[in-house]
Amino acid sequence: MSAPFGDRLAEAVRRCRTPLVVGLDPHWEGVAKLFDLSRTPSPADAAEAVHKFCTGVIDAVRELVPGVKVQVAFFERWGPPGMEALARVIAHAHRAGLLVLVDAKRGDIGSTATAYAQAYLGPEAPWPADALTVNPYLGPDTFAPFVQLAQAQDRGVFVLVKTSNPESHTWQDLTDREGTAVFEHIAQQVEQLAQSSAGQSGYGSVGAVVGATYPEQLARLRSQMPHAWLLVPGLGAQGATAADVAGAFDSQGLGAVVNCARAILFAWQREPFSHWGARRWQRATEQATRFWIEQLRQRTPGGKL
Amino acid sequence: MSAPFGDRLAEAVRRCRTPLVVGLDPHWEGVAKLFDLSRTPSPADAAEAVHKFCTGVIDAVRELVPGVKVQVAFFERWGPPGMEALARVIAHAHRAGLLVLVDAKRGDIGSTATAYAQAYLGPEAPWPADALTVNPYLGPDTFAPFVQLAQAQDRGVFVLVKTSNPESHTWQDLTDREGTAVFEHIAQQVEQLAQSSAGQSGYGSVGAVVGATYPEQLARLRSQMPHAWLLVPGLGAQGATAADVAGAFDSQGLGAVVNCARAILFAWQREPFSHWGARRWQRATEQATRFWIEQLRQRTPGGKL
Repeated sequence: MSAPFGDRLAEAVRRCRTPLVVGLDPHWEGVAKLFDLSRTPSPADAAEAVHKFCTGVIDAVRELVPGVKVQVAFFERWGPPGMEALARVIAHAHRAGLLVLVDAKRGDIGSTATAYAQAYLGPEAPWPADALTVNPYLGPDTFAPFVQLAQAQDRGVFVLVKTSNPESHTWQDLTDREGTAVFEHIAQQVEQLAQSSAGQSGYGSVGAVVGATYPEQLARLRSQMPHAWLLVPGLGAQGATAADVAGAFDSQGLGAVVNCARAILFAWQREPFSHWGARRWQRATEQATRFWIEQLRQRTPGGKL
Repeated sequence: MSAPFGDRLAEAVRRCRTPLVVGLDPHWEGVAKLFDLSRTPSPADAAEAVHKFCTGVIDAVRELVPGVKVQVAFFERWGPPGMEALARVIAHAHRAGLLVLVDAKRGDIGSTATAYAQAYLGPEAPWPADALTVNPYLGPDTFAPFVQLAQAQDRGVFVLVKTSNPESHTWQDLTDREGTAVFEHIAQQVEQLAQSSAGQSGYGSVGAVVGATYPEQLARLRSQMPHAWLLVPGLGAQGATAADVAGAFDSQGLGAVVNCARAILFAWQREPFSHWGARRWQRATEQATRFWIEQLRQRTPGGKL
């Protein structure tokens, strides 16, 4: 790796001319249905099928998008064989030339946080991520171990700021006496870390996760964190449209990557892609990816890329 | 398992007559020094040594304490072999009759949270925890998937409320216009879940992590969450004393378990236990465990047990 993460992501987004990343969320129900497998497989069989499914998705989308976001929970759920499959999926994505954003939402402090960082961001990381999602609840001292190791390896960190779920407001939106929300306080810290690591692209190696399901906060956070990449989940199955994420981009169409998972992964079961059927599911996945790329092109500044 | 988690923990604490749990935080520097190993081992060698160390600790303390708290990061750091070792360490602790609190600080929503819950709390969990730590940042909708699976299996959940690190105040202590801190809002939710699952002991299957390093908040949270077990880290190496955790207990001496890790694990390097040396490190660990049990007995209501 030869450039800071912020610049590497900018280069990949420009090269592919889309901010779309494909979410590898291998829900077992979906994988089992596709491959006609047991709903209660052995962990080893499940891990093997999850690997087959994820590498199949990667092969279908590799020419189209800058990267994938891998959801660790769906691998961890299968125990050690699942975590072994995760390592092989990451390696496959890297061989395909994709950036790999690992969505693990880890968070701890001191030497414990360093241990997590070594697992995903270190020089000998068993699951080498181009960037890792980190949970900020413990406090700003959560970040240093992740950020230090990430920057030394030209990797990145995405801090959860405003998440896409229905009840994210409950604590994230609590406001202090000055009217500043908890998530805005965290955004300030993220912007500081992003600014101090900003490369030629203008973006740093620390970014923020902001849900597509909150378009107003998304636009506000874009302006409050001018040096931070936004990782925007929630497109498709969670209900957000391409128009909802328009505010996530800067005037050049950079500054955000938008994640779409289920609507792409399981497109073979959905209109207008279901005519491909289970046998040609990868074609459905590819077509759904092209659909969302076009949606983002028409309705967001990402179309200027 | 035959009783709800809250009651199982009460039974174990009463039987051992101590609220002390031993923290299995196998820092590699410490393990390598003890066994005279490379500072840069292969993951397989490291995982094997971590397993040997943790089972050695378990064997030294099994007659003394109700349980152990396992820090996942120090296993995950070694990749799939580390996660394999974690499963074997959990099994060893269960065979020794100990409760296993898995400190993984996971947190997500919907089917993703369910996947994490299946990994640690489900009927076929590859890493079967008696209780799992959960990060609340995403919102109350984080909890349901963990709590449902936990309760169905007589397992428990500890939600991070007020953590022990120096900068935990930054966002956890932000107060709204009514003067209620973020961590107190979360405590209210925890108390609801604890109350609705309270068993014969009076305690439920959802508890709270509250750092020993904040004695005032600890005492306040004890009274604000009368049905919630508190898991209290920070004793020893993080600077808290036994007196600091006195406020964590109810009038019977129940309601809290206190975690001590480094001061016990690496006692062979510390006074007054270093005379045992590396060769008899388990004796040092046992003596340090007895030391902290006695400290808690003298200075907290845990001594009434």
